[in-house]
Amino acid sequence: MASPAAPPTSPAYRVCLIGSGGVGTIASLVLTKSGQAHVTAVLRSKFQYVSEHGWDIESVDHGSLKGWRPHRVVGSASEAAKDEQGEKIEYDYVVVCTKQLPECNPVTAMIEPVMTAGRTTVVLIQNGMGIEDEVLAAWPTNTVVSSVSHIGSGVEEPNRVVQVGKDVSKMGPHHGPSSVYGSSSTTTSESGPDADSAAKTARIEKAAAFVKMYNAGGAHVCELVDDIEAARWEKLLWNGTFNTVCALTRTDVGEIQRSKGRESLLLPMMSEIWNIAKAADHPLEDTIVQWMAYRLSDDIKYRPSMLLDLENSRPMELEVILGNPLKVAKRLGVSTPVMDVVYNLLKVEAWKIDQLGRK
Amino acid sequence: MASPAAPPTSPAYRVCLIGSGGVGTIASLVLTKSGQAHVTAVLRSKFQYVSEHGWDIESVDHGSLKGWRPHRVVGSASEAAKDEQGEKIEYDYVVVCTKQLPECNPVTAMIEPVMTAGRTTVVLIQNGMGIEDEVLAAWPTNTVVSSVSHIGSGVEEPNRVVQVGKDVSKMGPHHGPSSVYGSSSTTTSESGPDADSAAKTARIEKAAAFVKMYNAGGAHVCELVDDIEAARWEKLLWNGTFNTVCALTRTDVGEIQRSKGRESLLLPMMSEIWNIAKAADHPLEDTIVQWMAYRLSDDIKYRPSMLLDLENSRPMELEVILGNPLKVAKRLGVSTPVMDVVYNLLKVEAWKIDQLGRK
Repeated sequence: MASPAAPPTSPAYRVCLIGSGGVGTIASLVLTKSGQAHVTAVLRSKFQYVSEHGWDIESVDHGSLKGWRPHRVVGSASEAAKDEQGEKIEYDYVVVCTKQLPECNPVTAMIEPVMTAGRTTVVLIQNGMGIEDEVLAAWPTNTVVSSVSHIGSGVEEPNRVVQVGKDVSKMGPHHGPSSVYGSSSTTTSESGPDADSAAKTARIEKAAAFVKMYNAGGAHVCELVDDIEAARWEKLLWNGTFNTVCALTRTDVGEIQRSKGRESLLLPMMSEIWNIAKAADHPLEDTIVQWMAYRLSDDIKYRPSMLLDLENSRPMELEVILGNPLKVAKRLGVSTPVMDVVYNLLKVEAWKIDQLGRK
Repeated sequence: MASPAAPPTSPAYRVCLIGSGGVGTIASLVLTKSGQAHVTAVLRSKFQYVSEHGWDIESVDHGSLKGWRPHRVVGSASEAAKDEQGEKIEYDYVVVCTKQLPECNPVTAMIEPVMTAGRTTVVLIQNGMGIEDEVLAAWPTNTVVSSVSHIGSGVEEPNRVVQVGKDVSKMGPHHGPSSVYGSSSTTTSESGPDADSAAKTARIEKAAAFVKMYNAGGAHVCELVDDIEAARWEKLLWNGTFNTVCALTRTDVGEIQRSKGRESLLLPMMSEIWNIAKAADHPLEDTIVQWMAYRLSDDIKYRPSMLLDLENSRPMELEVILGNPLKVAKRLGVSTPVMDVVYNLLKVEAWKIDQLGRK
């Protein structure tokens, strides 16, 4: 393991990582440990405390660390954009691990200061569907790598990170608009098939290099996949159902299962998501719905993230988790009666949270 | 006004009234004040306190009363069944003003001790659809009068009743199974049309006598109607929508309106209810949905009863408010996608409340 304070060994990628939750802090640890990156972490609310004390980490993948820091900790993306001499840094990778809240905190605005057009690859370790589109639209010649993470990790105030679930993820480049905005899953350009193919190869290489670095840093397993959007639809079988219905009914996972809400609500919603994914040319396995619905024990007390957000009156990732999939369904004519109602009910909850924020 | 403690003037109906909430207490006051009834009120949890202190009432219809009591206050229906000499009382009317919870507190079991087959008319001043069927099934030769009440009245512990909304109601006899259990709205028997017609006339007379007595007691207005089930469907436009969605989203009426939940959820649900009523041969006015949806101000802070029940972990009237109407919809092939999901979500809330009760 590279000493965090030491200069990175060559070859080193310049990495800027935004987001200091459970996912982001472990990602910054992994990338720092890889020895292949110089990591600048952008922290907002936690900047002052972590600058002084570092992170205290308890991790199933990395053990116990006290006062750990990435190479550089800054309080804003503007600060990250320049080195200590005030020179513009050309980042190779910008890794985004924030909540996905396109309405109040769009990723494009967040990363703009640290982007170099045509160079910086954006890695989105975030929930939801269609999250790559705004970045691709703003920087059409840059690569966007999308990551579906299954890590179990959270932050306890002020600076303690507890990772209880191993860091398992899939990553892959996006080659064009997601199924939220278009039916094509590959970029079409006027440059002809050879140029398209070369661009695609370049995107895959950038994703592969990142995956290699991520695995070198001691993540449990990070897999490079061809069809990352299929992996996103698969994760949505959970996030669009358990996560949303547990939030709405204020139940943990065991409770929603024992109440029979799994049969009356979650299974119908999973079928709707399965149907949308199929219509969007990212078909999922036939058996995945049953597996996803019944894999957890009925006495599990797990409280999904949207429930925690709702209980604490924090903004929920509703638009990317249900809003965008419903846009795909509408465009492709897939019937989604249960998702529609759950979405509209959660919109009321989101309105209440928004009203509180205005007070 | 007859003195509550004095013997009733002739002709006096023997009335047993069950339920001591805001609706029931005002009904017992009205019936006592009519001078046409000897009223025995069955109280359960409040029996001891009200026996000693009576009710303190603040009413828009009846003014201020301190320590008011009906003719007789008892702690159970079994006690109500006999007079002070231990003789069986043959009640003319049993008035039920409890919450409608067929699963845990069926009306038939509640009233059984005070019923005389072929004589006692049952008056149901309660919410929901299909609530008459179990009573008609248990006592097929008795009359069931159904009342749709729009009173605004509540109890503050231990014995204070505050009535802020005038006592406006519609009442009418039921002539056969409701649309929850059969498509016919009139009883068919083997006795032939003349006997059927005579029985129907007798039921209307019993309802009319009760309505006359109720108006004599100073209720704001009580109207005898031919098709009480249509009045129930009309009230369900409110109870099946604002009541249920405000409960689920923990919003008051103004909030659900301002959040746009009225447009995304309540109006579609109202259309579904309108369609069920039409299919069940109780068509409602074309303009009623818009009127019901937009009649209240956007800044009203009214919290519907189901929301209060949910917030206080008390059983909700879910089965008679949504469960039974959905049975009608299923039988008649009416599509109810929004009601289905709201019902299934509230079933999860009901399960949680039930679990708490078992602790």
